[in-house]
Amino acid sequence: MKSPVPFCSRLSIEEQRFWVNTLSEALPEEKILLFSELSESERASVEVAIVANPEPLELLALPNLIWVQSVWAGVERMIKELPTASFNIARMIDPNLSKTMSEAVLAWVLYLHRDMPAYMRQQKEANWHQHFVSQPEQRRVGVLGLGELGQVCAKRLLSNDFDVCGWSRSQKEIEGVECYSGEEGFKKVISQSDIIVILLPSTPDTNGLINFETVKIMKPGAQIINFGRGPIIEEEALLYGLNTGALKHAVLDVFDREPLPRSHAFWTYPNVTVLPHISAPTSPDTASVIVAKNIRAYRNLKMLPECIDTKKGY
Amino acid sequence: MKSPVPFCSRLSIEEQRFWVNTLSEALPEEKILLFSELSESERASVEVAIVANPEPLELLALPNLIWVQSVWAGVERMIKELPTASFNIARMIDPNLSKTMSEAVLAWVLYLHRDMPAYMRQQKEANWHQHFVSQPEQRRVGVLGLGELGQVCAKRLLSNDFDVCGWSRSQKEIEGVECYSGEEGFKKVISQSDIIVILLPSTPDTNGLINFETVKIMKPGAQIINFGRGPIIEEEALLYGLNTGALKHAVLDVFDREPLPRSHAFWTYPNVTVLPHISAPTSPDTASVIVAKNIRAYRNLKMLPECIDTKKGY
Repeated sequence: MKSPVPFCSRLSIEEQRFWVNTLSEALPEEKILLFSELSESERASVEVAIVANPEPLELLALPNLIWVQSVWAGVERMIKELPTASFNIARMIDPNLSKTMSEAVLAWVLYLHRDMPAYMRQQKEANWHQHFVSQPEQRRVGVLGLGELGQVCAKRLLSNDFDVCGWSRSQKEIEGVECYSGEEGFKKVISQSDIIVILLPSTPDTNGLINFETVKIMKPGAQIINFGRGPIIEEEALLYGLNTGALKHAVLDVFDREPLPRSHAFWTYPNVTVLPHISAPTSPDTASVIVAKNIRAYRNLKMLPECIDTKKGY
Repeated sequence: MKSPVPFCSRLSIEEQRFWVNTLSEALPEEKILLFSELSESERASVEVAIVANPEPLELLALPNLIWVQSVWAGVERMIKELPTASFNIARMIDPNLSKTMSEAVLAWVLYLHRDMPAYMRQQKEANWHQHFVSQPEQRRVGVLGLGELGQVCAKRLLSNDFDVCGWSRSQKEIEGVECYSGEEGFKKVISQSDIIVILLPSTPDTNGLINFETVKIMKPGAQIINFGRGPIIEEEALLYGLNTGALKHAVLDVFDREPLPRSHAFWTYPNVTVLPHISAPTSPDTASVIVAKNIRAYRNLKMLPECIDTKKGY
């Protein structure tokens, strides 16, 4: 008999039930259920679990777990909380995700490019004042992180006429995009960019990349969008940059602690736009199709999907 | 001797001087100056003037004026204020204008599509709440006005995966866009669209198109962007729609009176975004190149550029 597939998550029970229903529709031949609904003997039989920010203790309670399928793209919290886990981790690689993310990147780059924060402030004061519109060709956007997501985003900005450059750990080549790598390359990108878009995963190498030292070499009046992970930016360094006017505006969608605590300074900062981690939420519909494909390949062919390198962190 | 070319405008003197300088650089062979700098005899010699929302009395003081070149696309105020003028009017047809306008249409459609107004309101309350992200294919955008500008905008929305329909007085055909015309077609577009983008000129036919009757047949929760002209929308009907929740949000860039009076209700309306007529401001640099081309063709070949039909109003 096939082992059941638990859905392990710290989402609310309602959201978990929504996921279980959507996944069950895509995989009617599997028994998909909440972790809490597993019997003791069922726990021992579980080979594969579906996860979304799972409670580590739940996964540790599955002694024969071979692999987990995350319905989220980001899994660094799981890696951090389960450093010695022996199971494989497949993160969500949803083709729709890069489309939704590149739409968000374009939407919030245009938000900054067309001075929306200034017009919102002016509206509060009933202030009719027109700002000069720059041509997108004169606006250099620097994309930090040129993986799957970053490449799609860079190309979408390029096709909307922005002057695009990018940086990644390993050197990439993207037609029409000036690609840099390494420490010197990083400095070049952040010192030339009018708008910096962060799409990096959180790893020991990327955490704190935006710090007092790097904020100082940014182009005066630079604007930052963080759609990667909170720890990439040292919050004090960002606030210092915004306070001194070195930086003009920041759009932050990810934070060290989520939800962002109600008392956090970012909420009331005039040149910070706070978003509740909505740049590219996984769509249960499209994600379920991918999960179904991966679980069927495992059941029928004993094949695992591409799993992450837990040492690199992505 | 060549007659001088006055720049006639109600812009501030600083802005007028900026235009005169930029135009003079593009047309070094012409004597371009402010209207107030013309001598009496020079006034009688003027054949062509460059205008940007001109004072009617100034143009009436040029008895031998043959044509005027507007550096703005919209000239309906001039037509209204000078109904019996015998000179020809060339409005600015700046290829850059449709690019800048389509960028604005995309930027503010994405603003509504990605729920930016809701996230701004939530930030004020330190409220972390994620909204479901719709796919652009599921978002029908209706473009009212399919002239030069409207067509470029419709195509740009289409290439960003929106479901696009459009309406114009005379039937158009645009690949991938459901085009309608006539009264029935108008009702279809406004009753099906999640986001309505107004790009119509102000004419006796278009003024008041958005009224109590048409607001009532709009899709519940529809959102409106007005980048056309203020009088297209009856303000009371719009406020009624927003008050009753029939309409979700309006982005208004154009108004019956500009600047929008400080006491106007729109400034403080929670689901109205007020913009100070900035969707597609003429860039003096690119506009000057076009003005130079038109004035040279007139001087050398006695050819007038395409002029507007003052009866249609565009």
